[in-house]
Amino acid sequence: MNPSHALHHARTHRAQFISELKEFLCIPSVSSHPERKDDMTRCAKWLARHLRQIGLERARVVPTQGNPLVYASHRRRKDKPTLLIYGHYDVLPGEPLAKWSTPPFSPTIKGSDLYARGATDDKGQLFCHVKAIESFLRTQGSLPVNVKCLFEGEEEVGSTHLLPFIARHKNALRADAAVISDTRMLAPGRPAISYAQRGGLRAELEVRGAREELHSGAFGGAVLNPIQALCEIIAGLHDKNGRIPIPHFYEDVRNSSEQERDSIARNGPSDVQILQDANVLRGWGESGYTLFERTTIRPALTLNGIVGGHHGPGVKGVIPTRALAKLSFRLVPDQEPDKIAELFRAHIARISPKEVNVRVRILSPIKPAVIDRNHPAVQAAAFAYKKGFGAAPVFLPSGGSIPVVSAFSEHLQIPTALMGFGLPDDRMHAPNEKFHLPNFFRGIETCIWYLAAIASALDPGKAIVDPAPEWEVPA
Amino acid sequence: MNPSHALHHARTHRAQFISELKEFLCIPSVSSHPERKDDMTRCAKWLARHLRQIGLERARVVPTQGNPLVYASHRRRKDKPTLLIYGHYDVLPGEPLAKWSTPPFSPTIKGSDLYARGATDDKGQLFCHVKAIESFLRTQGSLPVNVKCLFEGEEEVGSTHLLPFIARHKNALRADAAVISDTRMLAPGRPAISYAQRGGLRAELEVRGAREELHSGAFGGAVLNPIQALCEIIAGLHDKNGRIPIPHFYEDVRNSSEQERDSIARNGPSDVQILQDANVLRGWGESGYTLFERTTIRPALTLNGIVGGHHGPGVKGVIPTRALAKLSFRLVPDQEPDKIAELFRAHIARISPKEVNVRVRILSPIKPAVIDRNHPAVQAAAFAYKKGFGAAPVFLPSGGSIPVVSAFSEHLQIPTALMGFGLPDDRMHAPNEKFHLPNFFRGIETCIWYLAAIASALDPGKAIVDPAPEWEVPA
Repeated sequence: MNPSHALHHARTHRAQFISELKEFLCIPSVSSHPERKDDMTRCAKWLARHLRQIGLERARVVPTQGNPLVYASHRRRKDKPTLLIYGHYDVLPGEPLAKWSTPPFSPTIKGSDLYARGATDDKGQLFCHVKAIESFLRTQGSLPVNVKCLFEGEEEVGSTHLLPFIARHKNALRADAAVISDTRMLAPGRPAISYAQRGGLRAELEVRGAREELHSGAFGGAVLNPIQALCEIIAGLHDKNGRIPIPHFYEDVRNSSEQERDSIARNGPSDVQILQDANVLRGWGESGYTLFERTTIRPALTLNGIVGGHHGPGVKGVIPTRALAKLSFRLVPDQEPDKIAELFRAHIARISPKEVNVRVRILSPIKPAVIDRNHPAVQAAAFAYKKGFGAAPVFLPSGGSIPVVSAFSEHLQIPTALMGFGLPDDRMHAPNEKFHLPNFFRGIETCIWYLAAIASALDPGKAIVDPAPEWEVPA
Repeated sequence: MNPSHALHHARTHRAQFISELKEFLCIPSVSSHPERKDDMTRCAKWLARHLRQIGLERARVVPTQGNPLVYASHRRRKDKPTLLIYGHYDVLPGEPLAKWSTPPFSPTIKGSDLYARGATDDKGQLFCHVKAIESFLRTQGSLPVNVKCLFEGEEEVGSTHLLPFIARHKNALRADAAVISDTRMLAPGRPAISYAQRGGLRAELEVRGAREELHSGAFGGAVLNPIQALCEIIAGLHDKNGRIPIPHFYEDVRNSSEQERDSIARNGPSDVQILQDANVLRGWGESGYTLFERTTIRPALTLNGIVGGHHGPGVKGVIPTRALAKLSFRLVPDQEPDKIAELFRAHIARISPKEVNVRVRILSPIKPAVIDRNHPAVQAAAFAYKKGFGAAPVFLPSGGSIPVVSAFSEHLQIPTALMGFGLPDDRMHAPNEKFHLPNFFRGIETCIWYLAAIASALDPGKAIVDPAPEWEVPA
């Protein structure tokens, strides 16, 4: 199927696409805020309705124990392969709100950028696929391939309910390849395909001391302070070389080949570039590796938050009752999250002082993933980038964790093309997140080329041959 | 002047005294909450009016740059010494509110205890003196001595404005001795006089990293995390022996004599008692000292609060921009707060990693204080305790810091009798703070005896001879 009509449609409907994306971005679908439950549902319904309007079939909101999924399909090409398109409609909180130049849920265009929480991560990138599909359906009434869209509302909180859902619905989700746009390019005009994702493991460390706050005059010096104990435990999680001194932690880390490290050095961002992207003067971390390597082929441990005692204005002379830290590991092949969780628990137990009560809670383990860059579905993405951005992508490992990638590999036995349109300065997860509009437009065209390319790159899959009813949910 | 009429009055007006104290406790005079400014003023006015009503003269609210002082006097006994009575009407915050069985500012009697924030610290204890004065004035129209009452509203936040006020108004505040009831007894029926107060120094440590939150996938492992840096700095503030490894920190600590340590061991609470009071299983701290010694004759460093990054419900995969800790030193003779502040700054500068920006803010230095236990004003307190509680007090050092004690010594050259009526389980500074009502009643009688005793214990002072007008403030 020739994509020229679809491309023409995409080029002549940019204003409409921006207007629709803004509507999508207005909904504060913050998955980590329980009080946003209604907004999550509202956002899922909006998206399902939109997928129905552009001509996809079976568009529906699929309830889960957590935030709902949104599903839609196009299964009219019996002779063609099936592509599973994943994205997430949930976003991070806007806080700290004071740091935003424009409110996070009032999408605002300044120059060539659209500012909003979720602009790049992932509503804007997800929308590139939606608008590519629309461009085909509006102009030709069909798509070059069969498509199953699966959009979730819990990516930012560990895809807790999606992962078991995939395991339960292997048949219904059967496909020949998956594509996700939720990653970054190297720079404008320099696309990149991620062939590896770090895994992850979130944990909470809670230290409890006395059951009631104690007067720091009367008891200071005689009772171990939970904040102090927590800080000492956290200080025991890195050594002077930036390594994590948990015994056996590095045991399963796959050593990269010289060839891979050369390729990373040649194609990946330099230390200078990374410092500039982070807007910091000095790097830090595991000695013996470049900054990019430290964030991709090496594991890391990040403190995400800490709280304890009186931290508001003014003073309060007390020994607090408890202190809590939230942290996350980024893991690399072949580290197993479950094994790392056990090593972590054992290490904490070993270094915790006996005067306080230390609890470890383990959350949302995500396996690291490696994708075969020579798979035709991944090579089709390289082709699409060349058409859409006029440049061949570089292949690089990436530092983030998209939990679903390893689930697709494990349960559906399919590779995932990680074809991202974000830029390093898009401030994903930070205030003033934005999407570079030229990337939105080129992203849509790239997705159009991808749909066309995948039709011939892959054999007609077995996926479509299976007339299995999709799962039983209210339509 | 025979105290029998006053004692009789006190015994027959207990219900009224409780009712008035409850009214005083209802006002949420939380000095560390800026939004409580109006309540502070309301509380000061209530107290000044009350002092006027019981017959004190010149009762007034004295504005400062911060929360107002309350002053009143009785200066009719030209031939008698002058006693300066200090107390504070400000209280700590009620938070965490969920831990209170009854709301902190709804005073509630259960059994023999009156529950409310400030019940013991210090509204209830301050009120013992007020009701003792009232008992004399109502029955005899005069007091056995001259009295100057000075009640402040910033004790819990370091007496920031009172200390310079005392330095500026030495003449107006001239007295022969001071008395403060803001400390604890050893147990019901076991009074104690504090002959030493630890000094203090509050500080904030702030660590700043990148200017914006960074995605922990993209940058985790390559950028130093401010929470991690702060924790490592805090971990560097205690060694394995519970000592503070700041160079020269212990240099000026006065070593207690064998005799003093013997007396403390004989009269002070045992380790078992302190663990029970704190409701913890194990003690902690500087080796070579009992728990009581660690909280009195040895300095300590307490973490009061910490905050950084995302610490609410849910998860947020970021490297935060900053982390903040609040801490307080308790210092002992002859440690100088200003010198300790410099040593602390230098130590932090030495141990701070260069990848982040570390700031130290020093707040409210308080000098340690030692009081001559043989001074007649202090011996008069021992006599009053014997009359009021039927037991001779023990002399012990105490762990807290009442900033004004060293100011009285330094600027007015007078000793302070620290005659407390609190109990170890009164939960000063904690949820469910209470005042044991038998101690309230005995406290009032002890204060009556004290006023009588001080009249003969001290020579007619020079204070009253000075007809200097009190400071110029609106009456």
